[in-house]
Amino acid sequence: MRTQVAIIGAGPAGLLLGQLLHKAGIDNVIVERQTGDYVLGRIRAGVLEQITMDLLARAGVDARAKAEGLPHDGIELLFKGARHRIDLHGLTDGKQVTVYGQTEVTRDLMEARQAAGLPTIYSAASVSLHDFDGARPRVRYQKDGATHEIECDFIAGCDGYHGVSRASVPADALHTYEKIYPFGWLGVLADVPPVSHELIYANTSRGFALCSMRSATRSRYYVQVPTEEKVENWSDEAFWNELRLRLDPEARERLVTGPSLEKSIAPLRSFVAEPMRFGSLFLAGDAAHIVPPTGAKGLNLATADVGYLSRALEIFYADKTASALDRYSDLCLRRVWKAERFSWWFTSLMHRFPDTGEFGQKIQEAELDYLVHSRAASTSLAENYVGLPMEEF
Amino acid sequence: MRTQVAIIGAGPAGLLLGQLLHKAGIDNVIVERQTGDYVLGRIRAGVLEQITMDLLARAGVDARAKAEGLPHDGIELLFKGARHRIDLHGLTDGKQVTVYGQTEVTRDLMEARQAAGLPTIYSAASVSLHDFDGARPRVRYQKDGATHEIECDFIAGCDGYHGVSRASVPADALHTYEKIYPFGWLGVLADVPPVSHELIYANTSRGFALCSMRSATRSRYYVQVPTEEKVENWSDEAFWNELRLRLDPEARERLVTGPSLEKSIAPLRSFVAEPMRFGSLFLAGDAAHIVPPTGAKGLNLATADVGYLSRALEIFYADKTASALDRYSDLCLRRVWKAERFSWWFTSLMHRFPDTGEFGQKIQEAELDYLVHSRAASTSLAENYVGLPMEEF
Repeated sequence: MRTQVAIIGAGPAGLLLGQLLHKAGIDNVIVERQTGDYVLGRIRAGVLEQITMDLLARAGVDARAKAEGLPHDGIELLFKGARHRIDLHGLTDGKQVTVYGQTEVTRDLMEARQAAGLPTIYSAASVSLHDFDGARPRVRYQKDGATHEIECDFIAGCDGYHGVSRASVPADALHTYEKIYPFGWLGVLADVPPVSHELIYANTSRGFALCSMRSATRSRYYVQVPTEEKVENWSDEAFWNELRLRLDPEARERLVTGPSLEKSIAPLRSFVAEPMRFGSLFLAGDAAHIVPPTGAKGLNLATADVGYLSRALEIFYADKTASALDRYSDLCLRRVWKAERFSWWFTSLMHRFPDTGEFGQKIQEAELDYLVHSRAASTSLAENYVGLPMEEF
Repeated sequence: MRTQVAIIGAGPAGLLLGQLLHKAGIDNVIVERQTGDYVLGRIRAGVLEQITMDLLARAGVDARAKAEGLPHDGIELLFKGARHRIDLHGLTDGKQVTVYGQTEVTRDLMEARQAAGLPTIYSAASVSLHDFDGARPRVRYQKDGATHEIECDFIAGCDGYHGVSRASVPADALHTYEKIYPFGWLGVLADVPPVSHELIYANTSRGFALCSMRSATRSRYYVQVPTEEKVENWSDEAFWNELRLRLDPEARERLVTGPSLEKSIAPLRSFVAEPMRFGSLFLAGDAAHIVPPTGAKGLNLATADVGYLSRALEIFYADKTASALDRYSDLCLRRVWKAERFSWWFTSLMHRFPDTGEFGQKIQEAELDYLVHSRAASTSLAENYVGLPMEEF
């Protein structure tokens, strides 16, 4: 088989890239190790920046997100027992975020891809990348007992942190940066109405909590737990009790509990691999960088990457110049590092750290007190939360 | 002897308090362990916030600071080899800072006190505070072979971190918070023109550097060094060479070197004791809190404390109500913690930390890149640098 762009990974990054390329008249094939149902079963974030909504619109896949997504104009910060609202909309000249589950984004993109008749190879085993630093890039995989090969101009590595794409790059061509946080998030998904119509980020002496949602009837709650904690130790009741202890009295009263649809513990980590391009191989999304979930930047960073990549490929095929492709890694990384900075800062501000002691807690409270009372500091939080602008090639 | 307010310590905080009380018609006596010459020999910071200038004006001691001080409208941040200016004046509706040595402030206040004929007891040995939680507060000290006692209504503890005032408070009445940074500042004072007319704060792979000044002909330079470093290991030449390596090419070329008038290493520390009041004893300045020097908040926090204290005492004597005195500690601490937060943040942003590795350095560079390009983030830095407003009782 031959295509222009072979995309590794059928998560939201790979699917969105495929759709954007298709709209630009660029052939592409997606190769995915898992089944489509497996991909759809992964529970992920659910806060979309405006640039993600814009990219979905450009891909022609924003109808349901616009109809069913919940536009949010603000968030609430809870500390020292009281909530303070950050007016995202007012502080950023009218920008907002949209609450719409990543699973739904993936579903919409899958359906659009199927409707357009674009090739996606699910359950592709032993995927390997070849000659991406040479003249004949190829992707090889096993399926139905046979070895298949896709010849292509470019390979887009959208296959996440554990995927084959980054692992295929020679180790000495890659510089990685990492920080592991000494805690995780215990998360519960439940079909109960959200405790508040906006997200609540809570800094408490018992640790961080987040009240999030997927819709008006489906809530997503998290509490910070030690790294070594086991999900088996947490009954639904224990979770709700712990969450309640981290809320203000009003929220505590309003909280509606119910059986968990999903319950899991996710570790928190920052990770960046540089550069994001090697010859004909371009990394995008989690394949190149991970942020801790505080502030919900993961999916949005991935969509920005594929926004840049699709544009650079368009320029390449339209104008026969590689100049935009040559700038891809730098342009992405500049924005990636700002989002890494924001996610690290917001994580550091809101969680209890075992080693910073009472001084650390007082500094957090002083920062939160300053933050909610300073227009400049609130604006800085807001402009990062709604998403920093993308640059032009 | 009997007075209304006994002030412990004849540094700038104690002297300014004495002058402000005198202007309000409140008797005071200052008791100082050292000689006046010793106090004047201490080299300290030299960047005054507008509120410090205003307090000096209220005390009638701002003539020379206004005539000889250098108004600064901006600072420069140096990172990744290039300087970026923060327009303090433009970002804060016209506020600025004044570069004027703390030693000069102290000298001006000493002269004003002498001219007003106000009592200052220097070389007071074995100072002790008595009954400040009872009805008859007293300060006792030894001088010229005799024991002396001052009866007073209130005691103001302006005698710094190592002074007797905080040490006199029962340990269980005090909550302290502390952070020790894993480095110090090696500082040199020299009679050479400053490398730039504004301060340069440098983040480099070799560590932090600061180009500061006392006047148009006297410079103050610092380089970050490991905590265990010894000043004897640093010849003037070695210092200038290290500083040069931390500057951008233009500054490197403009740097004028000369013999050091003073050379020392200062450790960096954050410290807060709460509350700042015990009965009739009020702590102010370094006696209650220490900030790392990045951002020059130490002296300015001390003057704000004595600004609050003099106002609360005025209200007490004029209106016979202790309500302002009762709010002194809370009002100070709210502003203190914001300055502690700022000083910790600016220190964390600009120094190399032995344990944060390459990720830490990249996050710093991402934050600096974001900071100098975001009006909101620049404004947040600027409003803290020129000094957050004081509140009213």
